[in-house]
Amino acid sequence: MSTQAIRILGIDPGLRNTGWGIVDTLGTRLSFVACGTAHSDGDLTLADRLRQLHEQLAAVIHAHQPDEVAVEETFVNKDARATLKLGHARGIALLAPAQAGLSVAEYAPNLVKKTIVGAGHAEKDQIHMMVRVLLPKADPQSADAADALAIALTHAQHRGARALERAVLARAR
Amino acid sequence: MSTQAIRILGIDPGLRNTGWGIVDTLGTRLSFVACGTAHSDGDLTLADRLRQLHEQLAAVIHAHQPDEVAVEETFVNKDARATLKLGHARGIALLAPAQAGLSVAEYAPNLVKKTIVGAGHAEKDQIHMMVRVLLPKADPQSADAADALAIALTHAQHRGARALERAVLARAR
Repeated sequence: MSTQAIRILGIDPGLRNTGWGIVDTLGTRLSFVACGTAHSDGDLTLADRLRQLHEQLAAVIHAHQPDEVAVEETFVNKDARATLKLGHARGIALLAPAQAGLSVAEYAPNLVKKTIVGAGHAEKDQIHMMVRVLLPKADPQSADAADALAIALTHAQHRGARALERAVLARAR
Repeated sequence: MSTQAIRILGIDPGLRNTGWGIVDTLGTRLSFVACGTAHSDGDLTLADRLRQLHEQLAAVIHAHQPDEVAVEETFVNKDARATLKLGHARGIALLAPAQAGLSVAEYAPNLVKKTIVGAGHAEKDQIHMMVRVLLPKADPQSADAADALAIALTHAQHRGARALERAVLARAR
């Protein structure tokens, strides 16, 4: 049993707005550290917008030194162009922590909802309300930041099971 | 009229294999500089694979110091999962040159075919053959590297028109 808090960074990727939220977890205790939104400027080229997101996420990682990172799995939607755009932003959200040597877990939106609200079909509002219940000191200024905190909380809940799974897989090799 | 060669890096993004090719252009003269393929290891996590691609592309940019970069626009395909995966890799292909302060042009696959072969519906083989005709010293070891050279050649052909368009847009603002 670890006696040191694990710091988790959750990321909700998007090309215009990428939410991020940081939570410390120790045993069953959870505490809010920080949250915010990385923005990109729609007037710039796609390449420069990705550079902006990367810079801001790298700065968050540098400032808060998380131990583990969780990124929301993208909802693959019918609009292929929107899916591709999100894929670009998500690539950046995965790259920045990997460059810092951090392990990155991925969670499907339904698992986030189920973990936080108890139902896979929960509404956004219910998730945001539960984030405020679980992290009373958090005051996310955007829906993206609240979503990112929900992803961090989901990883706090599931990281033990994931570590076990990795150990089993490593032994099976 | 510039009397100095412009060095162009073309990138054909893909998660497993990202092709790259470098061409110098001076007036109507074209010369082959280098080409290759950045690989990612399918056994690693998605985040670590993106880190591998980024490292290799950043090294190519550092080694060859291109002036301008061109990236193939992704074919938005019916398989949303494949589109998303390609989006991740493409995000990295756009990010690496933007971080080096380079301007990144994007070209649709059909425009690449039309520019190189003269027909938007050209087969891959025709493109690769024309790349060898236009760049006799090139000996691409993979289809991805040959495609990347075709993208660099496309930019060599269109960069003048693009610069004009940018100047007109800037004046219109």
